[in-house]
Amino acid sequence: MIMLQEKIKLEGKVLSDQVLKVDSFLNHQIDPFLMREVGKEFAGRFKNEGITKILTLESSGIAPSVMTGLELNAPVVFARKRSSLTLKGKLLTAAVYSFTKQEENTIAVSGEHLNETDRVLIIDDFLANGQAALGLAEIVKQSGAEIAGIGIVIEKSFQDGGKLLREKGFRVESLARIESLENGAVQFLDETEAVR
Amino acid sequence: MIMLQEKIKLEGKVLSDQVLKVDSFLNHQIDPFLMREVGKEFAGRFKNEGITKILTLESSGIAPSVMTGLELNAPVVFARKRSSLTLKGKLLTAAVYSFTKQEENTIAVSGEHLNETDRVLIIDDFLANGQAALGLAEIVKQSGAEIAGIGIVIEKSFQDGGKLLREKGFRVESLARIESLENGAVQFLDETEAVR
Repeated sequence: MIMLQEKIKLEGKVLSDQVLKVDSFLNHQIDPFLMREVGKEFAGRFKNEGITKILTLESSGIAPSVMTGLELNAPVVFARKRSSLTLKGKLLTAAVYSFTKQEENTIAVSGEHLNETDRVLIIDDFLANGQAALGLAEIVKQSGAEIAGIGIVIEKSFQDGGKLLREKGFRVESLARIESLENGAVQFLDETEAVR
Repeated sequence: MIMLQEKIKLEGKVLSDQVLKVDSFLNHQIDPFLMREVGKEFAGRFKNEGITKILTLESSGIAPSVMTGLELNAPVVFARKRSSLTLKGKLLTAAVYSFTKQEENTIAVSGEHLNETDRVLIIDDFLANGQAALGLAEIVKQSGAEIAGIGIVIEKSFQDGGKLLREKGFRVESLARIESLENGAVQFLDETEAVR
């Protein structure tokens, strides 16, 4: 997605070979117009999948998910992290290990909002090692619903999450795929492919 | 806002005289179409205020804020709670006491995304005792920006937050104002006024 790549080049901050900060439009400040385009792009890619529900994780997944839900005519459910759990009743939960924070967190969704009649599109802001997406997939599995696919705003393709998810048979659609953050520069995967 | 009142009547769960649960369209599952209408309504009420930025609090404030930002052509900044703090650099922070959880939390915004040139619309999902809104207002004050107003999706008018904020001179616009949750029923303030 060209508009997203340009935004990343313009405003993304490469903090190390592993870490890209996009706090100006996705993870802290949000650009609503870019999010609307992200929503349209996800909707275009998954429009024939019969999506009935979008599942994401608080907080940065919410904006792209709501815009996608608007286009696909599907409600959005956001999984809660342990720290904000005020959910009661039947809970679907999964453990998610964060390499960044070096801690395991429980994420949870109420069983009221996901069931075996649903076809679910999982959306998240970043894909690095895939732990968050796998946690969300585990929750969908517990609910009896089907996973139609996984939509990622920014994939760090040099980490193993994308490979892991695709090997498990999931359809993963990433709107920007970063091949490298070396030497302080963002290199996208499809730029490299285009040159070959 | 009639559409919102109808949704609350239809899907809201009155858990006690104090607690209304709206997990099916705002706080856990999100209705993107309702959020778009909420965004349009906030935008209509604040369109002449010269808003340059919307400030909200993760996680439930994000969806209505992004839709409002789309209408007002303004970026959204969401304050982080302590538990999800990965912010670095100059931080604007405030302490927010939660009566529900009986604990004090620090909320924070990066100084990069809010400054003295901004006119800020604060948006939150619920207004009860006003502590979250006051914390957000404190952060705006620290940044040197101006507060143009406070937009609330659901105000529990029988708690003192609305009175507190209006007495401080803030323009508070609440899209649904609940006068009472007694006897398991939602009574809106303007319904009562209409009868008078």
